[in-house]
Amino acid sequence: MPNGSDTRPSSIIGIIGFGAFGQLIARHIRPYFRLCAYDPAPGLQPIAECHDVALTSLEMAASCPVVVLATPVGRLQEIVDAVAPHIQPGSLVLDVGSVKLGPADIMKRGLPAHAEIVATHPLFGPQSARGGIAGLKIAVCPIRGRRCFRLAAFLRHQLRLNVIMTTPEDHDREAATVQGLTHLIAKVLVQMEPLPTRMTTKSFDLLLEAVNMVRHDAPEVFEAIESANPYSSSVRRRFFELASALNAELADGPV
Amino acid sequence: MPNGSDTRPSSIIGIIGFGAFGQLIARHIRPYFRLCAYDPAPGLQPIAECHDVALTSLEMAASCPVVVLATPVGRLQEIVDAVAPHIQPGSLVLDVGSVKLGPADIMKRGLPAHAEIVATHPLFGPQSARGGIAGLKIAVCPIRGRRCFRLAAFLRHQLRLNVIMTTPEDHDREAATVQGLTHLIAKVLVQMEPLPTRMTTKSFDLLLEAVNMVRHDAPEVFEAIESANPYSSSVRRRFFELASALNAELADGPV
Repeated sequence: MPNGSDTRPSSIIGIIGFGAFGQLIARHIRPYFRLCAYDPAPGLQPIAECHDVALTSLEMAASCPVVVLATPVGRLQEIVDAVAPHIQPGSLVLDVGSVKLGPADIMKRGLPAHAEIVATHPLFGPQSARGGIAGLKIAVCPIRGRRCFRLAAFLRHQLRLNVIMTTPEDHDREAATVQGLTHLIAKVLVQMEPLPTRMTTKSFDLLLEAVNMVRHDAPEVFEAIESANPYSSSVRRRFFELASALNAELADGPV
Repeated sequence: MPNGSDTRPSSIIGIIGFGAFGQLIARHIRPYFRLCAYDPAPGLQPIAECHDVALTSLEMAASCPVVVLATPVGRLQEIVDAVAPHIQPGSLVLDVGSVKLGPADIMKRGLPAHAEIVATHPLFGPQSARGGIAGLKIAVCPIRGRRCFRLAAFLRHQLRLNVIMTTPEDHDREAATVQGLTHLIAKVLVQMEPLPTRMTTKSFDLLLEAVNMVRHDAPEVFEAIESANPYSSSVRRRFFELASALNAELADGPV
């Protein structure tokens, strides 16, 4: 701050990947930390609230005491390979992807042993966080080291998030249903547009509200949810089997 | 009322079919009208708020100046046949089913020419009306006579409903998508229970809220929506085609 009244701690957080989600994180943690960010996109224009975040090199962002990997799940391996040589001893590295088993494994294998690791999944996105993030859920999986508990306390008390301590496996099992079904149904309904807006019921309005909350998610999010979560295909198979059984039943006449 | 202070108009409305929906209607119009109701179920116990509604014979309910047919769409033909001989000259008859083309036709053909007819579809049910009905939608289709306009004014100004004047055809076309999709998705999701409650996103919570709003609807409602609406099968076909295309795409690998 210009007049030297900056009361923020001197900790610096480096954000790797400064897309919609990286900027959402920055917006909410900037009152508490100094931030720098790296994004591979040339000429990236952050949203107004993130204009004061220093855009730096990958090396600089990766050598911060706390490093947040906010890249698509599908690109995590290459990012971990790129940041690994720059991670400082005792640093904390965390990811924010929609899937946890694969990413936890990639980080455990790819990051130096002197780094602490936490795998997280904020169960919200730019749409659902529009009214603020207080009360929203975040899954936190301790992977290596004990700083996950300080992190959880920060998320709970400063950001007022609903912190769910879990394991990558339990996370992926539930998320396969929660996100798998939501995105699947949203994909189909968006393809059926234009949908009615006049003669709607309250439950249809809720359905569309759910769809509108995920429809603008990056394609990589859908890909991660449906392909990188090992439990997704069986949830999907179950949904399609039940749906086609119902279809057959209805085609045969009144149920 | 016991002390003679009853300020309600002397108009009597007869409700034919006093199930969940008939009683929902009664609860909201009893401040404005005297009511009597007929239901074929022996020993029917109305909800507390409807205890003062006189349960009468079909003949008596059908000979009121206003008659509301609150029976399942699939039983409308037999009910119209049963009430027709008792409808008084100048009476207004209305239905409240989820489908409008078939019922409008049944009423037009089966009710005496001296009866006015309005086909309506309140776009809500006992679940979505739990917080009151003000602001909820109702489709109103004039079929015969001009009293539909006075009815619409009553629904709008006294009950504060959002009245949508439409035709049976336009209604059924939109409702096939609105209700067809909601009930279809709800049927499938209910079969997938137990669903996660912990690691949920806001959009998944909305999806479940939508499901919970229709899951307790009578089976006849689902049957009417999916089988008696002539546009439902093509909406359903489109949904299943898109869903299975997506399924195939995902099975082939990343999209």
